[in-house]
Amino acid sequence: MQVHESTTVAAHADLRVDGARLWDSLMQLARIGATDKGGVCRLALTDLDREARELFIAWAKAIGCSVRIDAIGNIFARRAGLRDDLPPVMTGSHIDTQPTGGKFDGNYGVLAGLEVLRTLADANVQTLAPLEVAVWTNEEGSRFVPVMMGSGVFAGAFSLEHALAQRDREGVSVRDALAAIGYAGESGKPHDVGAYFEAHIEQGPVLEAHDKTIGVVQGALGQRWYDVTVHGMEAHAGPTPMALRRDALLVAADLIHAVNRIALDYAPHGRGTVGWLDVHPNSRNVIPGRVTLTVDLRAADDTTLTAMDRALHAACSAAGEQSGIAVEVEQVVYFPPQPFAAELVAAVKQGADMLGFSSMDVISGAGHDAVYLARVAPAAMIFVPCKDGISHNEIEDARADHLEAGCNVLLQAMLDAAQKVGSANA
Amino acid sequence: MQVHESTTVAAHADLRVDGARLWDSLMQLARIGATDKGGVCRLALTDLDREARELFIAWAKAIGCSVRIDAIGNIFARRAGLRDDLPPVMTGSHIDTQPTGGKFDGNYGVLAGLEVLRTLADANVQTLAPLEVAVWTNEEGSRFVPVMMGSGVFAGAFSLEHALAQRDREGVSVRDALAAIGYAGESGKPHDVGAYFEAHIEQGPVLEAHDKTIGVVQGALGQRWYDVTVHGMEAHAGPTPMALRRDALLVAADLIHAVNRIALDYAPHGRGTVGWLDVHPNSRNVIPGRVTLTVDLRAADDTTLTAMDRALHAACSAAGEQSGIAVEVEQVVYFPPQPFAAELVAAVKQGADMLGFSSMDVISGAGHDAVYLARVAPAAMIFVPCKDGISHNEIEDARADHLEAGCNVLLQAMLDAAQKVGSANA
Repeated sequence: MQVHESTTVAAHADLRVDGARLWDSLMQLARIGATDKGGVCRLALTDLDREARELFIAWAKAIGCSVRIDAIGNIFARRAGLRDDLPPVMTGSHIDTQPTGGKFDGNYGVLAGLEVLRTLADANVQTLAPLEVAVWTNEEGSRFVPVMMGSGVFAGAFSLEHALAQRDREGVSVRDALAAIGYAGESGKPHDVGAYFEAHIEQGPVLEAHDKTIGVVQGALGQRWYDVTVHGMEAHAGPTPMALRRDALLVAADLIHAVNRIALDYAPHGRGTVGWLDVHPNSRNVIPGRVTLTVDLRAADDTTLTAMDRALHAACSAAGEQSGIAVEVEQVVYFPPQPFAAELVAAVKQGADMLGFSSMDVISGAGHDAVYLARVAPAAMIFVPCKDGISHNEIEDARADHLEAGCNVLLQAMLDAAQKVGSANA
Repeated sequence: MQVHESTTVAAHADLRVDGARLWDSLMQLARIGATDKGGVCRLALTDLDREARELFIAWAKAIGCSVRIDAIGNIFARRAGLRDDLPPVMTGSHIDTQPTGGKFDGNYGVLAGLEVLRTLADANVQTLAPLEVAVWTNEEGSRFVPVMMGSGVFAGAFSLEHALAQRDREGVSVRDALAAIGYAGESGKPHDVGAYFEAHIEQGPVLEAHDKTIGVVQGALGQRWYDVTVHGMEAHAGPTPMALRRDALLVAADLIHAVNRIALDYAPHGRGTVGWLDVHPNSRNVIPGRVTLTVDLRAADDTTLTAMDRALHAACSAAGEQSGIAVEVEQVVYFPPQPFAAELVAAVKQGADMLGFSSMDVISGAGHDAVYLARVAPAAMIFVPCKDGISHNEIEDARADHLEAGCNVLLQAMLDAAQKVGSANA
């Protein structure tokens, strides 16, 4: 492989992406499904999704990429490597949005990947390993569940058949929706991935709070989600003395506090949230007879997450025993904590340092396609700040210089990995 | 008035109502709007309400009563007195129900009054003062607000015009609904009432818990109702560390506990309930950005109710200051505590003792037509137990012997009052 030594990353440390082009592409893509409030509504596998996919594919083909679609509609735009038999260094994210989503969530990861390829094309740089930009189907889960569907199928988290059989609220299946927009691609075993990077807005307030440009993501929190039901006794607020009540909302209030306390007990990465709560019959002068609520616990390692799970069950039992009211707990989702690959995380940190960007180690509290990819390939993520930590909202915003910085880190990290994948397979 | 001395109550201490007839009438009335689950759905001023009104009027006329309808549709069935110029001794309640209501709430008070008149007619007893049974329009407030509409207009709590202008969810006004069922009666100043009694199922668990047949109602709790809004910051449950959250539901949980503590601090009559709560955006993995909730505080005297009001405001301020989250409190309803007339309360107690029924002093936690009547006449109430304290529910139930006992107490109390009204005006 002596002939290709001139293409190593060291030779391209001075390469820089075109931040203005990246921003322009983000704004152009954001027009597809643009909302009045400045956000984007582009649900998975709709005509708007198709339109956005076609724009991406046109851009990728314009710089000489080959494009492949798999059976769940994931798009892979590939820039050939000098050793095109090597597993690709991949980056990507998603271009479906929440119903009242923003311009950057997902879209940034896809277009940062495209900008890396454009930059290499402009500079006529060839990499040892091929590079790919993936557009993962239905990451958001707003129209079809499960969330992170395309990357989940790719990583074997669930089967293609399971995903294709899911239906939206109108009863349309994923299978039919894919066919309708012309994105039911070739089936077959997913290809090997040499390394996977994903650039993403943080969707949280940590980088902004610490005034850092680059978040070096160490991994993703594990998650346990629960449905909790408190069975009290509905009764009139007036004629029922306090001592004779079985108030389900009062027990629910205990549990809300318990969930918060459990998270604080497992600082700094422990998180506990009651995000959804339903009161029955929800009438001003009726003592609540039944309350259902959700609990979302997250932790950086499984030992902690298991301890938090035990603490939640203990809190529910204690609240039930004290009040004489039955409390049911059912776990409905479990995502194990997912550490990222040390060598890729190091490459991200090294890229940030080399480029002179301030950075800090962070952990992803949310799920991303990279979390599934990490099950089948070395993976890592690059976070950039978003305004006020707000995402999944039409007012989601991010600074052009931050987006450009993250893209430059991605470029360096991918070049580094493409060389290393090449060397490892030399 | 020497000629009428033979008609005093003392002469009729051995009179008894016909419990089987009372029960049969209750069951017959319950067929109008009967639900599959054994309850009744007979909303105010519907065709079913008209049908029930006509049945009552037919029964009243069959025993020689005259019937008058007022401008808000209240029905007054009158049995003449020997001194028919005296203000009547009145009893009554309502025959409209909740959408999933029971057979006894309200209906019992009306038919117990009818049974008293029937018993007197059978025994050919004449009273000094005339007796009246009132059927108050729209006590429940399920179709039109305000609740206790007919008795509220009668007692001047709000104006006839205000009541007539109210509309249901389909936009039909009270005025038009009254006209449609033919119950827009004569307008004019409400007539004087010498005394008012109302028999009612307890709608609470106290009598059953104490194994007593008759509740001697001392008065009604005062009520203050509030809308409380907690303004937090919506954010992703995953990426937002505990220290950077402004969780509106966590503050709401503090307030739920505070409302309960305030009620316990003012035992035994203090009551505090959060019956309605709404979480925004109510999504499993989003930290609640806004929570609205209702607070219902009740107390037996205004000094206590005012102290509870101050405690609530203090708790909201404290919760807001601790969390840095704005908490808004708005009072939306105030009913002052309403003590009943000592001499009528004593007559109820005396009737229960004379008839050998176990009894206890109770306080009405709920609003009733009697609470408004007490503003314009001496008033009192008689409670009988209902099964498990359950009301406003299709499974609402009561024992025939309890209903009969309450009706016998009502008979004796009305006879006593009719004599006393007569004597006072002799």
